Amino acid sequence: MSRKVPKRVFLTEDQMPTQWYNVRADMKEQHDPYLHPGTMQPVVLDDLLPIFCTELAKQEADIVTRYVDIPEEVQNFYKIFRPSPLIRAYELEKALDTPAKIYYKFEGNNTSGSHKLNSAAAQVYYAKEQGLAGLTTETGAGQWGTALAMACAYYDVPLSVFMVKVSSEQKPYRKAVIETFGAELIASPSDTTNIGRKILAEHPGTGGSLGCAISEAIERAVSTPGYRYVLGSVLNQVLLHQSIIGEEAKMQMEMIDEYPDIVIGCAGGGSNLGGIMAPFMRDRLEGKKSPYFIAVEPASCPSLTRGKYAYDFCDTGHVTPLAKMYTLGSGFMPSPNHAGGLRYHGMSPILSKLYHDGYLDKAVAVEQTKVFEAAAIFAKNETILPAPESSHAIRTTIDEALKCKETGEAKTILFNLTGTGYFDMQAYMAYKSGKMNDYVPTDADLEQGFATLPTIPGIQ
Amino acid sequence: MSRKVPKRVFLTEDQMPTQWYNVRADMKEQHDPYLHPGTMQPVVLDDLLPIFCTELAKQEADIVTRYVDIPEEVQNFYKIFRPSPLIRAYELEKALDTPAKIYYKFEGNNTSGSHKLNSAAAQVYYAKEQGLAGLTTETGAGQWGTALAMACAYYDVPLSVFMVKVSSEQKPYRKAVIETFGAELIASPSDTTNIGRKILAEHPGTGGSLGCAISEAIERAVSTPGYRYVLGSVLNQVLLHQSIIGEEAKMQMEMIDEYPDIVIGCAGGGSNLGGIMAPFMRDRLEGKKSPYFIAVEPASCPSLTRGKYAYDFCDTGHVTPLAKMYTLGSGFMPSPNHAGGLRYHGMSPILSKLYHDGYLDKAVAVEQTKVFEAAAIFAKNETILPAPESSHAIRTTIDEALKCKETGEAKTILFNLTGTGYFDMQAYMAYKSGKMNDYVPTDADLEQGFATLPTIPGIQ
Repeated sequence: MSRKVPKRVFLTEDQMPTQWYNVRADMKEQHDPYLHPGTMQPVVLDDLLPIFCTELAKQEADIVTRYVDIPEEVQNFYKIFRPSPLIRAYELEKALDTPAKIYYKFEGNNTSGSHKLNSAAAQVYYAKEQGLAGLTTETGAGQWGTALAMACAYYDVPLSVFMVKVSSEQKPYRKAVIETFGAELIASPSDTTNIGRKILAEHPGTGGSLGCAISEAIERAVSTPGYRYVLGSVLNQVLLHQSIIGEEAKMQMEMIDEYPDIVIGCAGGGSNLGGIMAPFMRDRLEGKKSPYFIAVEPASCPSLTRGKYAYDFCDTGHVTPLAKMYTLGSGFMPSPNHAGGLRYHGMSPILSKLYHDGYLDKAVAVEQTKVFEAAAIFAKNETILPAPESSHAIRTTIDEALKCKETGEAKTILFNLTGTGYFDMQAYMAYKSGKMNDYVPTDADLEQGFATLPTIPGIQ
Repeated sequence: MSRKVPKRVFLTEDQMPTQWYNVRADMKEQHDPYLHPGTMQPVVLDDLLPIFCTELAKQEADIVTRYVDIPEEVQNFYKIFRPSPLIRAYELEKALDTPAKIYYKFEGNNTSGSHKLNSAAAQVYYAKEQGLAGLTTETGAGQWGTALAMACAYYDVPLSVFMVKVSSEQKPYRKAVIETFGAELIASPSDTTNIGRKILAEHPGTGGSLGCAISEAIERAVSTPGYRYVLGSVLNQVLLHQSIIGEEAKMQMEMIDEYPDIVIGCAGGGSNLGGIMAPFMRDRLEGKKSPYFIAVEPASCPSLTRGKYAYDFCDTGHVTPLAKMYTLGSGFMPSPNHAGGLRYHGMSPILSKLYHDGYLDKAVAVEQTKVFEAAAIFAKNETILPAPESSHAIRTTIDEALKCKETGEAKTILFNLTGTGYFDMQAYMAYKSGKMNDYVPTDADLEQGFATLPTIPGIQ
């Protein structure tokens, strides 16, 4: 079997992009401004500085700089695990008997097991440059906590990770990885913060929540001299850092004379789709030929497909700024889903705006059993065990490839495989035993979530 | 920081070796022949055919063919995860403040998490070509079982894995990965074989052993029409397939004008060191400049450093052929060690012969706590979480690099990082909590093992 395109397309270190792409510099309209959770007035830079690292706060607000130089130290860190391969899914194509050409960008070949390291490497570098004493964050499923622990170990910056207590108990190995990289791991709620003690007093024995962990992480950051709080999705800065995924993928496709007809990414907070999409969205915004963009979300947490485009808190604890985004309401409680990274009530303000304005073409919601069915097909043929989050993109990729089989069209599909599923075997075991929860929220469930949307004088 | 050598050196698909190297074709003397466990006479090919796949049995006996063509279908499978990167350990060098240049070949970037896939890909291909109905194997720690399950899924060959019961209970995620790839997993001892039923009757509630699992796997293979038994280390065929590691590494070093002064690999059954060493040993056997070779084994299971060079059974169940090798006796019981892949009483007959004849320069035994200390330093700086087995090589690499720091010599060190530690977090947790077992067998312990060595009329 002779192949014109190799299975894996690599870039050399010298070819790795040296700039991130800021899609906002090309957007016709910006997303509505963040609002201060206390005053409900637009946030200004000074509001962010006590919480966020200064350079990151600036990046969050920057709508002008089209390309941001990647600092040399961050480039050196990237070189440990980047450039990442673009892979032609020959085996999957064959198994599906499809005329479609399927490519995936594989971001899982680092110990964090996901693309989160792209932003962690940048965020910790800026913290180090600022001379900060340490960082705090929260983690649910654990990918972000692991990535940040790795970056903090690399740059020698102390880190405290507040991990949702039930997750830290369910995923002791994730906890162990984070601690192996030298971070302090605190099960949340904890007795180390005022908010934690308050929650423990009110709800003894609670397993915690991401909202609570965020509140504790922020309290620790603002009450500890020289500390700041960092997070791994939703924010504009994160999409900026993740643009390297798409920039590399675009170069790699050009090297083999390809251009995608369809780009697919899963969407929880937005870092996955936002990363792979970036340079192709640039083509769209410049009026050039561009792909059809599809966001894939879990049916259990359908913010784009069934949510409202409204101002909402970014966290359930209501301590972070409000953003205009597609949201199910910060009080929405998704049914248990193994794709922890997609269980977010809202969506990146950038992606929300692009979807609202028709630049992001389509969002689909898929059920868990169908996601793991796709994951198992992919694993068997491509031999990579995908993370549940990325498997949402695999499901839709397979569906699109099967459509091509019916129509005979040889479309070129590109999807983002951002993570591996080594730490998600409980989910695979549940699938294997037929015990997947495929609950889809009813309209009444959604109304309960929407009821938690804030009322903002003069706006909504 | 400008670097002449990139962090990661890649080969393109076209540069991937198309032949395995058979070191035996260059060895001045061959290892003593395998003996039949029943007759104690040298094994002939016909003895092996009921148990092993025909082509693999031929490879096992082949001392003539210097280079064996890698079948095109195996090359295509390899292309999913090969060529693997050669990585310059810039960050580790900096942390150690050593003038040494440290390189590692990284084989862990596939779902099996180890180099075992190199041989699994080949073995299952030959089974498929022979039209076999299915395969059986045993697995302890689970790397081999996972790799074989992946290869069997890829080639659509049914597989039954007998997994040591205690391991299947301690490592439910390993079990889940193997089952996700479609293999049948049986906790051993089981009631599915005569030997399993016998052991269960004699030892109700036993957690099983590798020896028992091998016996069950072989019984299943010989009693099921069209089935054969495969295994992932010790054998000559396995070292042949693993030679691709070293062949790639040598090419990659040549691309950057490097040649190692020292080559280091861990040694359990021999597939790790045997793989990285192969083409450099060719240089040695051809009388060219060659590196200093170091095998690293756990102090708890010191077959090279404290074992006897003698004929012994390859398994504790005494159903496999006997080999002349460095051994602690098939009845030797190593103390609990987290490097499951190194808890083997014997050693590859090829490596044993090379060590005995002075071609393999040195063997060192290291204790667990020191191994995990090295693993943690490596993870922090290189951001890859290494498998406990490979971490033995890291320990010795660090020790050699620190010697260079003292002497000021800028030696070039190459070691084989064959696996990742994602499924070994219990071990890291034990290290973290200071609960590592560093028991080193006493001479009396060793004597107990040596007492189980067989007496062979006319030989030993």
